[in-house]
Amino acid sequence: MKVGMLTGGGDCPGLNAVIRAVVRKGCFHYQDEFLGFMEGWRGLVEDKSMVLDLESVSGILPQGGTILRTSRTNPAKKSDGLDKCIATLKSHGIQALIAIGGDDTLSVAQKLHEKGVKVVGVPKTIDNDLAGTDYTFGFDTAVNVATAAIDRVHTTAEAHNRVMVVEVMGRDSGWIAMYSGIGGGADVILVPEVPFDIDKVAERIQARHSRGRYFSIVVAAEGAKFSSNPESSHGDAVVSDLGRDEFGHVRLGGIGNLLAREIEKRTGFETRAVVLGHIQRGGTPTAFDRVLATRYGIGAIDMVHRNESGTMAALRGNKIVSVPLTEALAKNRKVDPEMIEVSRSILEGGPVDKHPVAH
Amino acid sequence: MKVGMLTGGGDCPGLNAVIRAVVRKGCFHYQDEFLGFMEGWRGLVEDKSMVLDLESVSGILPQGGTILRTSRTNPAKKSDGLDKCIATLKSHGIQALIAIGGDDTLSVAQKLHEKGVKVVGVPKTIDNDLAGTDYTFGFDTAVNVATAAIDRVHTTAEAHNRVMVVEVMGRDSGWIAMYSGIGGGADVILVPEVPFDIDKVAERIQARHSRGRYFSIVVAAEGAKFSSNPESSHGDAVVSDLGRDEFGHVRLGGIGNLLAREIEKRTGFETRAVVLGHIQRGGTPTAFDRVLATRYGIGAIDMVHRNESGTMAALRGNKIVSVPLTEALAKNRKVDPEMIEVSRSILEGGPVDKHPVAH
Amino acid sequence: MKVGMLTGGGDCPGLNAVIRAVVRKGCFHYQDEFLGFMEGWRGLVEDKSMVLDLESVSGILPQGGTILRTSRTNPAKKSDGLDKCIATLKSHGIQALIAIGGDDTLSVAQKLHEKGVKVVGVPKTIDNDLAGTDYTFGFDTAVNVATAAIDRVHTTAEAHNRVMVVEVMGRDSGWIAMYSGIGGGADVILVPEVPFDIDKVAERIQARHSRGRYFSIVVAAEGAKFSSNPESSHGDAVVSDLGRDEFGHVRLGGIGNLLAREIEKRTGFETRAVVLGHIQRGGTPTAFDRVLATRYGIGAIDMVHRNESGTMAALRGNKIVSVPLTEALAKNRKVDPEMIEVSRSILEGGPVDKHPVAH
Amino acid sequence: MKVGMLTGGGDCPGLNAVIRAVVRKGCFHYQDEFLGFMEGWRGLVEDKSMVLDLESVSGILPQGGTILRTSRTNPAKKSDGLDKCIATLKSHGIQALIAIGGDDTLSVAQKLHEKGVKVVGVPKTIDNDLAGTDYTFGFDTAVNVATAAIDRVHTTAEAHNRVMVVEVMGRDSGWIAMYSGIGGGADVILVPEVPFDIDKVAERIQARHSRGRYFSIVVAAEGAKFSSNPESSHGDAVVSDLGRDEFGHVRLGGIGNLLAREIEKRTGFETRAVVLGHIQRGGTPTAFDRVLATRYGIGAIDMVHRNESGTMAALRGNKIVSVPLTEALAKNRKVDPEMIEVSRSILEGGPVDKHPVAH
Repeated sequence: MKVGMLTGGGDCPGLNAVIRAVVRKGCFHYQDEFLGFMEGWRGLVEDKSMVLDLESVSGILPQGGTILRTSRTNPAKKSDGLDKCIATLKSHGIQALIAIGGDDTLSVAQKLHEKGVKVVGVPKTIDNDLAGTDYTFGFDTAVNVATAAIDRVHTTAEAHNRVMVVEVMGRDSGWIAMYSGIGGGADVILVPEVPFDIDKVAERIQARHSRGRYFSIVVAAEGAKFSSNPESSHGDAVVSDLGRDEFGHVRLGGIGNLLAREIEKRTGFETRAVVLGHIQRGGTPTAFDRVLATRYGIGAIDMVHRNESGTMAALRGNKIVSVPLTEALAKNRKVDPEMIEVSRSILEGGPVDKHPVAH
Repeated sequence: MKVGMLTGGGDCPGLNAVIRAVVRKGCFHYQDEFLGFMEGWRGLVEDKSMVLDLESVSGILPQGGTILRTSRTNPAKKSDGLDKCIATLKSHGIQALIAIGGDDTLSVAQKLHEKGVKVVGVPKTIDNDLAGTDYTFGFDTAVNVATAAIDRVHTTAEAHNRVMVVEVMGRDSGWIAMYSGIGGGADVILVPEVPFDIDKVAERIQARHSRGRYFSIVVAAEGAKFSSNPESSHGDAVVSDLGRDEFGHVRLGGIGNLLAREIEKRTGFETRAVVLGHIQRGGTPTAFDRVLATRYGIGAIDMVHRNESGTMAALRGNKIVSVPLTEALAKNRKVDPEMIEVSRSILEGGPVDKHPVAH
Repeated sequence: MKVGMLTGGGDCPGLNAVIRAVVRKGCFHYQDEFLGFMEGWRGLVEDKSMVLDLESVSGILPQGGTILRTSRTNPAKKSDGLDKCIATLKSHGIQALIAIGGDDTLSVAQKLHEKGVKVVGVPKTIDNDLAGTDYTFGFDTAVNVATAAIDRVHTTAEAHNRVMVVEVMGRDSGWIAMYSGIGGGADVILVPEVPFDIDKVAERIQARHSRGRYFSIVVAAEGAKFSSNPESSHGDAVVSDLGRDEFGHVRLGGIGNLLAREIEKRTGFETRAVVLGHIQRGGTPTAFDRVLATRYGIGAIDMVHRNESGTMAALRGNKIVSVPLTEALAKNRKVDPEMIEVSRSILEGGPVDKHPVAH
Repeated sequence: MKVGMLTGGGDCPGLNAVIRAVVRKGCFHYQDEFLGFMEGWRGLVEDKSMVLDLESVSGILPQGGTILRTSRTNPAKKSDGLDKCIATLKSHGIQALIAIGGDDTLSVAQKLHEKGVKVVGVPKTIDNDLAGTDYTFGFDTAVNVATAAIDRVHTTAEAHNRVMVVEVMGRDSGWIAMYSGIGGGADVILVPEVPFDIDKVAERIQARHSRGRYFSIVVAAEGAKFSSNPESSHGDAVVSDLGRDEFGHVRLGGIGNLLAREIEKRTGFETRAVVLGHIQRGGTPTAFDRVLATRYGIGAIDMVHRNESGTMAALRGNKIVSVPLTEALAKNRKVDPEMIEVSRSILEGGPVDKHPVAH
């Protein structure tokens, strides 16, 4: 069988492990041939590809990045984009396509499926917020990178009696913040799912101080949100106020720097921010992610040979299963309420959100 | 409530994280007091303990080992051992006990439970082979240490056109071998669950060689077993033959060194063994293990306050649940057949076992 | 002998290793007693101290931070600050003081020495720019953290055909940038010692692109400086222009973000910045730094017992020697011109500075 | 100019970094062409080579191993081996050869130089015991791997009140043992340079025990030697006694296991050995080794263009210099006596050698 493959969206540790697993199982087991399209959907639109065989996937398992390169090109946003993709697939005699990517990439896969292309997906996001699957590869690596960074920052916080704010990835969901925050022993963990009250954050840090713990670690997802703040009677305005400098100019910089400023203002304790950024999404995957990515790859090529289309490989409990692409695309997956409970259980002081989540 | 706690059996990354989570949730949430017994059950037999409070668990999350020390003392094996334990608990006014350990430690917990002591368990084994729970903390760390070692060994194998055998932990089960073997890109993975045919191992390595891959990595659990070998008409004798040196003396050294000798003999390729040993069970836990251990700790103290006894915290899918201790003690948990299938899917050549596992 | 000790200035991996080595050699060899003053010179001003013995330094070797805490308090800047220090030393019967810190901390040590206090210094800066010594502890750790981050960022740059700018520490000198840039395989390395021409930076990246290398890594010390830019006839104004946003407001954010904007503007290639920040200065030290810090500690206590004062331990070639504090305080140590030559040798394209350094 | 290159002897982190630096400076600066001979001298004997250009060295900086492969082939040991090498060089029009390797590899380089071949060496050994140079690349990586392993083993030793013996590389010299022992906080460090008295080793461990430190770490180079043992009146026989099992059979296994047995016998404390083996010589190099290897590569190609022969690049203090190959081949470089002093200073108890080294 002749199978196409592509990787789309942001870099994510484990992409190469998926590619390798697909090719190895395909070659050893099914005598498939593979063509890799370069730079996500752009490779289909512009007909750029490379042959994928055992030789070309040799040694790539521990490597970050993707030998197929990636881009955020979305052919569905151009009038004849999808048709070009279909034409390219035909011209190469591709019988099935494996698309590895996040919701944007998979939404194109779904559209091609609806137009009759046989296509199977592999979910990818370091944020772990794709619906339909329990864990995505790359997430464990991101959490370990963030936790190692928090470990390093911890010693500095303690040595200087300082508050350190660590901003981690997560625009819509707080998975990385929650796991690295618990793993790194943070004193406050702020996630988009639960808007926080900045005054309560400051109170908790002061409570620790009163107990003789003169340093604190705050871990915040980049998408963490201030709740309105009734005590200061500013309401929603508080958020944008934080976003301006002393001259009223819009401040650059994300939640990490805003938090550092507001915490220092309220507590008087020296506060610094670290924004981890891209180091969370590159580099060699952890063992967990290599195994998970390998299982996803095997699942995907098996699904192709079970003649599926419009589905994606997913992890449920300990099993790789097949779920409809539409399930993954329906909505974001929020942090498990149990994990929010976990973080509350071991952090001293009450919750820092105004309206605690029901559970 | 006054709660006792102890850690028993081999060192395992995450023990301190469990202790910390129990104490933090207990102090912040339930106003508990804690007494830690030293060196596993020995601390109860000999009445050696330390007070556990917020101060004493501060900063221990990322640290390997256990501040309560550990031992393999089993009071059930001495005539009045259990009675001494009960007396010690009474003398300190302990209302409930949390025992963190493997099947040996938990079997004592079960016996005390049967004698009326209120006791709750937390499962611990780096081997991941305790029944009743999906993953045990420490396992992910062991797998990452082993995978990092395989990564390092890989470059040497390739530079020298050599076969490298990496022996990892796992006397009764092949979890670490399977995960680190897949994560490290091993060409042969040998686990206790599936006895292997040494000639087939050699054949696979030669097949790789014929394809121009002049090096190979073999990952073997310490408990991996030779099957009888019909082709050489030696039957079971083969195993013990491997265990003797040229003078017929019993050879020291485990499966790793035996394999290296037999592979070199059969293939003519230079082969070396590395025995990872204790570096797999010490040191700072991965983020995954820190989070998992924290969740187990919270689960255990919650179970205490739900007035449970004779149960242990367990992970099922993504949830921490309570299961009877007897379930964990019933039998070893073997490597998931799906994982054995995974390893077969991506390794070239057929299975190296004589009688493939049914599935 | 009764010896005082303190750590001042910013956190730096290896501080605890110095403290431990001083105490161990002092206890085992000289039967000294030690008093540690808390939070740098503040501990002397406010008389806050802890006893340092074998027990208190046990297990601290691999730990980042400092058990003596640190601060940037400079008693020489207050009228009676130095007198208070001397009074505290007298009241505790301290016969000699070991001050571990950077130029600010050591400048106070020198002043106390001039007032008759017996004081010995240990140089500390992760920036490696203290005169008088070849390497300072903490630098190797910072370089390894930065290099590991560059490794991670590399895969993302390559996967996305992107330019990635990594901003590392180094306000006055480019040691970390130079070593991590060479170690991480950067394509452009920018250090304060050699002001750069932004147009030449862009040209080099375009030259790589023309050769089919569609990604580039730029490593910049936070103190890297734009040279005036004759081609755009803006002269020095260029720098401040870069420092304003589209509305003319002063931009926050350092050289990393400025570079990313200017490179993207000139090349049209997608460019992103990562600012490593505090993760470079905390956490467990590398083996190199642990050994170096240990040797500094031994050197310092030996110097105390050779009755020295106003001197500091220094590394020259492979030897620990004693040099006057005044030598370290005289000036900053710039990156070795040989290293600048090294970076030029292996980076393609000509130098990116307008006026190449003479050599 | 047309330049040949080869890597010989054992795998060593940084080999690829040397190759890359030679090729990059050669291409960017001198317009050289490069031919890499495969598997050390075997490539010259059997005429196996690959073209080395910018493309082929791209991305290899962080990778362990060597893209040129390596072997221990020594053409000087076969009658016409050297002549074959010379013939191969001529047939390819090679004007100069860069040989990267240890004393065996460099001894062949010297012989070819004596026969009129223009050859320049780059010293390579993870053991750091090559004369003529202060540090060899690969050593820092080996020390960091060993130190990280000791860190992990430390927690297990402490948790179990156990003695752990860690055997590291170093047959003729104790550099790795000394640096990783100091870096890992070992309580006893045994190196080939200073034969040890096993009874004194046991005494020191017992002394620690008496002070309430119930665990100990012993780091031993594989070439560490027992001194004769007067107290047991066995003299040299002790050593071989240790090498036999209870039936008088020669025991397999190295110094690590022997030490564990003898320490447990003498102290009664549970003792375990870990033999690190090949994980010390593979895998990605540290930043220090990447920079050092890069500097060696630049030094070598510069030497070629200065028309040198029979010389090798060497590190002296902070400078790369040229030294005669004969200097490196003259003798092994022993551990610096200052470092032996350092280890004595911070280890409690007296020296464990019978006849302390003079210094």
